[in-house]
Amino acid sequence: MVYIKDLSKHVGEEVTLKGWLYNKRSSGKIKFLILRDGTGYLQCVAFKGNLPEEKFELADTFSQETSFEVTGKVKEEKRAVGGYELDVTDLDLISAAENYPITPKEHGVEFLIDHRHLWIRSQRQVAILKIRHRIVKAIRDFFDDRGFTLFDPPILTPNACEGTSTLFETEYFDLGKAYLTQSGQLYAEAGAMALGKVYTFGPTFRAEKSKTRRHLTEFWMVEPEAAFFDLNDDMDLAEEFLEYIVQTVLKDNQEDLKILERDTSTLEKVKRPFPRISYDEAVAILKENGVDFEWGNDFGGGDETIISSKFDRPVMVHRYPSEIKAFYMKRDPDNPKVALAVDVLAPEGYGEIIGGSQREDNLDLLLQRIKEHELPQEFFEWYLDLRRYGSVPHAGFGLGLERTVSWICGLEHLREAIPFPRMIYRNTP
Amino acid sequence: MVYIKDLSKHVGEEVTLKGWLYNKRSSGKIKFLILRDGTGYLQCVAFKGNLPEEKFELADTFSQETSFEVTGKVKEEKRAVGGYELDVTDLDLISAAENYPITPKEHGVEFLIDHRHLWIRSQRQVAILKIRHRIVKAIRDFFDDRGFTLFDPPILTPNACEGTSTLFETEYFDLGKAYLTQSGQLYAEAGAMALGKVYTFGPTFRAEKSKTRRHLTEFWMVEPEAAFFDLNDDMDLAEEFLEYIVQTVLKDNQEDLKILERDTSTLEKVKRPFPRISYDEAVAILKENGVDFEWGNDFGGGDETIISSKFDRPVMVHRYPSEIKAFYMKRDPDNPKVALAVDVLAPEGYGEIIGGSQREDNLDLLLQRIKEHELPQEFFEWYLDLRRYGSVPHAGFGLGLERTVSWICGLEHLREAIPFPRMIYRNTP
Repeated sequence: MVYIKDLSKHVGEEVTLKGWLYNKRSSGKIKFLILRDGTGYLQCVAFKGNLPEEKFELADTFSQETSFEVTGKVKEEKRAVGGYELDVTDLDLISAAENYPITPKEHGVEFLIDHRHLWIRSQRQVAILKIRHRIVKAIRDFFDDRGFTLFDPPILTPNACEGTSTLFETEYFDLGKAYLTQSGQLYAEAGAMALGKVYTFGPTFRAEKSKTRRHLTEFWMVEPEAAFFDLNDDMDLAEEFLEYIVQTVLKDNQEDLKILERDTSTLEKVKRPFPRISYDEAVAILKENGVDFEWGNDFGGGDETIISSKFDRPVMVHRYPSEIKAFYMKRDPDNPKVALAVDVLAPEGYGEIIGGSQREDNLDLLLQRIKEHELPQEFFEWYLDLRRYGSVPHAGFGLGLERTVSWICGLEHLREAIPFPRMIYRNTP
Repeated sequence: MVYIKDLSKHVGEEVTLKGWLYNKRSSGKIKFLILRDGTGYLQCVAFKGNLPEEKFELADTFSQETSFEVTGKVKEEKRAVGGYELDVTDLDLISAAENYPITPKEHGVEFLIDHRHLWIRSQRQVAILKIRHRIVKAIRDFFDDRGFTLFDPPILTPNACEGTSTLFETEYFDLGKAYLTQSGQLYAEAGAMALGKVYTFGPTFRAEKSKTRRHLTEFWMVEPEAAFFDLNDDMDLAEEFLEYIVQTVLKDNQEDLKILERDTSTLEKVKRPFPRISYDEAVAILKENGVDFEWGNDFGGGDETIISSKFDRPVMVHRYPSEIKAFYMKRDPDNPKVALAVDVLAPEGYGEIIGGSQREDNLDLLLQRIKEHELPQEFFEWYLDLRRYGSVPHAGFGLGLERTVSWICGLEHLREAIPFPRMIYRNTP
């Protein structure tokens, strides 16, 4: 059995392939069957007389998604999809697919997502999933090649880090409730004190009642954390990281991007250095554009779009008001009103894809923040230990995988960026 | 700032390093400080007179896990840990670590696991976590290089696949209960029909009340699934996969294995081909060894140890009684009493590390199995669709990451194989 992606090695040979019928057409003595096998698409050309008569007729019974086996000679054919064609000499049915529900005609999104297990077979979804695969590999390669150690944080956590309202909870034997993690960061900090540079990469959860195209209740997040990194190191890392991901996909997934009709010109511009502006400068941009924005507020999606539209690549906005940022973020020694935080806004209105910061490494200040945020100190004793025993400056960030896939693929909604999306109104199939 | 692992590039140079004090000793005019920075260990030698007097004395105030910065000249020194030594010319405190709880003396396991966030700093735990990192990378590289596409299955699932007794459950908005996944396999099968060859790799959950050294409630599992694979292909894949993982760790983690005092001679034997025996043959081995074992039962941990002790490498046991295997496993057409299943038993008593099977691809037989197992058919309609529309033979397996880490590292208990273990009596820190 040969895969379509390997056909270039078999030109002139007779090979057997297996897969599913993607499409077909016929004109008298010639039938065209488009085979898909997960690695590509292949036009199989059946000339009457080149294969047994009953096999030639068998092809008529094949409908969309019928699984079959086909044998023939591989020919180069520039005009065909993928650049090769099969001159069919034999054909066998594996299994029928009567009344396959997803036809080439348009379907509503609810219908498609009800049939997500089949929808993923379509050319567009396959292209997205291949890009997702490549992005994940790029993320891991990036950190592995730079001396970061993978550090898997727990999914079931005992403490409700930032309030329970957006947490999924479960009974944990006799120990009371456990919560599904919203971020592995606090654990990653412990990892950085042991291993120097670490990254987490796993599913995270938000039981948010947000019904927007930019929210999933279950999504994957990668979170690097490095000892002895300050905010500038963190921004350097984020910048190099995003450039690497985007340029890798551009290099390796041109075919997939073409299927998605992605305008790649904006992706090509994702090269270092990225603009770095302070929150204050971002606010000034909003005001110049007539937005009635008050210093101290957080940016909404519309604000982010205005800010990012001023730049041709991702923009890094740093030093947010500490009031709107998490308790663990270090304040700027030069201006304690702002935190040493950075958000990276993607171009083309895709909004925040990275959020990071230098962490508070001073025990007393961290204790003070915990009190100010009215958080239960006893849950954070282990985290405070990281400041009690050899505290060091450190920083990190989180990147949402589905938002990144969505941006790079040019998707309208996050639901296409993950095999089986989970949203407030959907946890099936 | 230079990392310890890169010192070979800096011999003869003066460099600055940052990290934590692992150990120290002094004798009059000379102090030895062992620095750890997550990438390695370095003996820093402070000769009185080679650095300012107050810095020489500063070193006396450093205790275990004090964070500090040290400058000096790099020397090759075969007798020192890591092969290099630093001739100290300057020294600065970053942050103290008074009364660090984990001292070089022996501590009880409960104490250590209460301090898991600090315990991971110890040499042994760092070695395990680096091997875990390398295993994860080997797993991903293996599948990526062989044309498998990563396919992340949902963690929150609507159906209780094999009964709810061992499931963690959570309220899912207005949709009722959702359950934490026990396996991504059923979803991976949908992926294989779209992408040909896929693998899932993520956390899975079992709310099992097992309090043994071989159970975690949260653990990572990798599950390849391939269209057009039969049981033999599946066994070939499992065999190549395990060989690749073990030989990669042997090649890249010799230092870590040495720290763990792992006897690597048994790991070196993990080379293809692995012995393949049927369940019947395994039962015969048990009987020869005086075990009163009845055909049709599943093997217990003790049985597995007896079976695997007969072989010098992992053993693949195939064709189990279908009664004790999952509903989705295909029965052997030559003997419907057995399923086309395979378990791979690790040597040295580490038990089952892989479980796999060819899947039932016939719609009617699968429906019959669902009825026999008294499973709610409506939850499986989407899964049945995979047999309605272009069904193909396919197979896959699951490998438990922590059991693999545990085996390769030679650990007594799974709790050391993951950064923050979750067990029936433990979900902190």
